Amino acid sequence: MLHAVIMAGGSGTRFWPLSRHALPKQFLTLAGSRSLIQSTSDRCLGAIPTSRHWVVTNASQADETRRQLPELSDGHVLVEPCARNTAPCIALAAAHLLKEEPDAAMLVLPADHVIQPVDQFEAAFRRAAQLVDADDRRLVLFGVVPSFPSTGFGYIERDKPLAPGDAAYSVKAFREKPDRPTAEDYLRAGRFYWNCGIFVWRARRILEAIAQYEPEMKQLTDRISNTIGAAGYASTVNEFFPQMKSISIDYAVLERDANIIVLEAPFRWDDVGSWEAVTRLSGQDTAGNTIQGEHCGIDTRNCIVRSTDDHLVATLGLEDCIVVHTPDATLVARRGDENAIKKLIESLKQQGLSRYL
Amino acid sequence: MLHAVIMAGGSGTRFWPLSRHALPKQFLTLAGSRSLIQSTSDRCLGAIPTSRHWVVTNASQADETRRQLPELSDGHVLVEPCARNTAPCIALAAAHLLKEEPDAAMLVLPADHVIQPVDQFEAAFRRAAQLVDADDRRLVLFGVVPSFPSTGFGYIERDKPLAPGDAAYSVKAFREKPDRPTAEDYLRAGRFYWNCGIFVWRARRILEAIAQYEPEMKQLTDRISNTIGAAGYASTVNEFFPQMKSISIDYAVLERDANIIVLEAPFRWDDVGSWEAVTRLSGQDTAGNTIQGEHCGIDTRNCIVRSTDDHLVATLGLEDCIVVHTPDATLVARRGDENAIKKLIESLKQQGLSRYL
Repeated sequence: MLHAVIMAGGSGTRFWPLSRHALPKQFLTLAGSRSLIQSTSDRCLGAIPTSRHWVVTNASQADETRRQLPELSDGHVLVEPCARNTAPCIALAAAHLLKEEPDAAMLVLPADHVIQPVDQFEAAFRRAAQLVDADDRRLVLFGVVPSFPSTGFGYIERDKPLAPGDAAYSVKAFREKPDRPTAEDYLRAGRFYWNCGIFVWRARRILEAIAQYEPEMKQLTDRISNTIGAAGYASTVNEFFPQMKSISIDYAVLERDANIIVLEAPFRWDDVGSWEAVTRLSGQDTAGNTIQGEHCGIDTRNCIVRSTDDHLVATLGLEDCIVVHTPDATLVARRGDENAIKKLIESLKQQGLSRYL
Repeated sequence: MLHAVIMAGGSGTRFWPLSRHALPKQFLTLAGSRSLIQSTSDRCLGAIPTSRHWVVTNASQADETRRQLPELSDGHVLVEPCARNTAPCIALAAAHLLKEEPDAAMLVLPADHVIQPVDQFEAAFRRAAQLVDADDRRLVLFGVVPSFPSTGFGYIERDKPLAPGDAAYSVKAFREKPDRPTAEDYLRAGRFYWNCGIFVWRARRILEAIAQYEPEMKQLTDRISNTIGAAGYASTVNEFFPQMKSISIDYAVLERDANIIVLEAPFRWDDVGSWEAVTRLSGQDTAGNTIQGEHCGIDTRNCIVRSTDDHLVATLGLEDCIVVHTPDATLVARRGDENAIKKLIESLKQQGLSRYL
């Protein structure tokens, strides 16, 4: 059976001041009425009931995870004692799945992306699951057709389709985040996809691959696995998980294995990387503004304004700005510099204002 | 003896969202540690003890007046039942002063201006009081030397000095708010002053002048005056004050009388007409910013930021903006359009958001 494994360990400073250390991006409702993690769970439900949903998160976010996803089964919120990137995260989840079901397949999903429409997404992961059912050596990942020459994503270069006209391809190479001219080449070439970090494979198979390429990680996983469901589990996780190498599943396995399949994504995908995403997700009014909460604007154009229903944000003669109000902190930023918020976060730390993070 | 009469009836939307219907500008602390009305009272103390300070205000501001100026004598907070401009305000105050002291002189001051330095101001109003002592027909007002061709103030054209080289002049004419070319002519001519609305005269004399030019106003004032200190006072004020003509003391008396003296102000004067004043009053840092409250700025220039100690305002890549945070409303405005805030206030009313005013 296919299980949904939602990776929710992000720390998320890019949506400051709405996101905080204790409330990262996946818990925010940036558009519509459901948070990103709730939407991530929702969009699997057509094929994967909640009883087979899992979340891997950290200790400070476990309570909020259970609050937002109250229907998760007991024991399906897996808590990492520390952040160790995606390979240990996936190893831990795979070990748990195997205890429930030796043939379990897993759909691995970041908790903080937006994917639409849901039916296209469901069709895609069903196809991926069929590919794995047909040959359980396969490790399937999704490739998003680039819409602009992004320098912020890793790329997957496809090789041949499994059959003529098929959307599933073997992989020729993984490509690091490119510089701008290279990204433009990729966009023109047409055979490069963005790696959106969504995978389908059997739990047993990914653990075998980890055993092959990162044997120490597999040994540590086995130590943990032996205590799942037993009294010693918590102390075992706390002892062995932090000893794992911090490495992505891409580096640890995908870039080294010959059985990788990339499936061209038929859905729209957004990694919701900055406040700019809010405009893409929620649209703009005729003046180019994207407004949430109580607002009054005069001569206001191309702005993103976010407040609440009980706090008025008034904008006067404002253009190309982001205004985000929260009870204890307000951001006013010029649009266009996606990295500026990182500088701000650093500056807050240096000024002794970490209590606002 | 000289009494200080502080006129504090302003409604003050120009400092929204800091100023509100129930908390107009005179109660705000825009620079330093004292509010504008407290500073107005303070700067008289060198020559006029608190026992001779009076405030004329309206019902909704009387409590805040007493809270901010707790040393005011009982009965020295005069409450207008409705706004009727400065002539009725001054008539009411003069009537009260006469009951305490038949020879009382009054220094009339708006509550919401900034004047520095205090010693120069004190020297000026002492001189004005001497001019009135020497000839109690005199009505003395202060003329501020224009520093730019303002189209927002009324002007006083001086005539001859009382003595060669004297700073006190007879008045040739009052001039309405001019258009820009006229204001530039005034600035060049050198004999025009801004009328800053600060006056010195005997209470008896101003009431005689009102009797001469606005006899009905004087009759209504007498009806009120007869009940001062008696049980019927409140109902008498409520009945007769609203019947007075709403007119400024300038139109009612000063522009009609031959005994007007203008004294060139030796002090700096600021009417604190908009958020721009905060930069003049508090100065700027090396990046041109004027900051109050908790703030973190990256690439922020020529901004006015106002928050509190428990709410962080972060600005990123912001130039020439005003950011004002209050618990229930935040303003983000481009600098340079002093009247834009009036448009905003109108828009708030139209949108049913008057609760934020």
